[in-house]
Amino acid sequence: MSRWKPDARGRLARAAMELYGEHGFEQTTVAEIAARAGLTERTFFRHFADKREVLFEGAAALEARLVDGVVAAPADAAPIEVVAAALRSIAPIFAERRPFARQRQAIVAANPELRERELIKLAALAAAVTAALHERGVDEPQASLAAEAGIAVFRIGFDRWVAACDDGAELGEVMDELFGSLSALVAAGVAPRKARR
Amino acid sequence: MSRWKPDARGRLARAAMELYGEHGFEQTTVAEIAARAGLTERTFFRHFADKREVLFEGAAALEARLVDGVVAAPADAAPIEVVAAALRSIAPIFAERRPFARQRQAIVAANPELRERELIKLAALAAAVTAALHERGVDEPQASLAAEAGIAVFRIGFDRWVAACDDGAELGEVMDELFGSLSALVAAGVAPRKARR
Repeated sequence: MSRWKPDARGRLARAAMELYGEHGFEQTTVAEIAARAGLTERTFFRHFADKREVLFEGAAALEARLVDGVVAAPADAAPIEVVAAALRSIAPIFAERRPFARQRQAIVAANPELRERELIKLAALAAAVTAALHERGVDEPQASLAAEAGIAVFRIGFDRWVAACDDGAELGEVMDELFGSLSALVAAGVAPRKARR
Repeated sequence: MSRWKPDARGRLARAAMELYGEHGFEQTTVAEIAARAGLTERTFFRHFADKREVLFEGAAALEARLVDGVVAAPADAAPIEVVAAALRSIAPIFAERRPFARQRQAIVAANPELRERELIKLAALAAAVTAALHERGVDEPQASLAAEAGIAVFRIGFDRWVAACDDGAELGEVMDELFGSLSALVAAGVAPRKARR
């Protein structure tokens, strides 16, 4: 890939990821990112609001896709099935990106500010799924519980998928297996209670 | 209660909560808190590191109690039962404090920085419960799933308990009911899968 290829945004993102990995997020400056990409700081700020956005630019699109998945689930699906289907629908976004996801995960894990930002992102996803379930007519506390359980499965599943050495199971499969484990766990420990209306 | 009662810490905390409620967390200064409590700023900083600590001082004790609850659960309890028992064991801490909890919840909800801090507190609780389950010999992903599900129940349950108009159900009952709802939700939507070892 030539240095002068006009994909400025992609070059800046790749340069940033490299530098965050090499020197840490905190220690990397926008000037260094721009220099490594062979571009100017002004160009960086035309594409990204700040250093952090390189790592979180996909969050809004992810949330939108997840909500679309909730909306698109079959009308007769149980709430937890709706959430599982929505999560399955976003898994392909990550399929080609395991190396990037792995690199990103390590950068986020190494920095408290980024870990906090990641928590906020996940809380926003849970809130968006909860709201989309309300739209489908799911009551409380079922909507919040299903959304929170789903986002926990996503978080734990993503960690496991990224960490897997063999690049074997796809994210969707990992999450489906976790839903199954959650079901077994809950069945082993708590008697179901009829929802109050 | 006399103004000169020597409970400086309690007076400062009450003054802070009043002012956060009246003017907002952001707009309140330590000087105002000290003045309302009839004490000096120096005294405030002898008791609290900053304005935020008034709202989060109980976090470390809560985490310790929750971990104690995990350790103390019967040896043969299923992981989700362990988590439910640990949550039940912390519920009495809040029993006498619903008005304070309600006031605190409103202050936290109104401020993005405090909402983030609350997310971090909850993530730390989930991590502590996960680690305590590992100590009991619970494998992954069961430990993470049980801990995350439990903290979701705690968060949703706490919100419902605080918001309840009639001051009826106790927090422990609210959480038990949520575990039952979670069980029903999961049973309605996902087939249990045997844990892999």
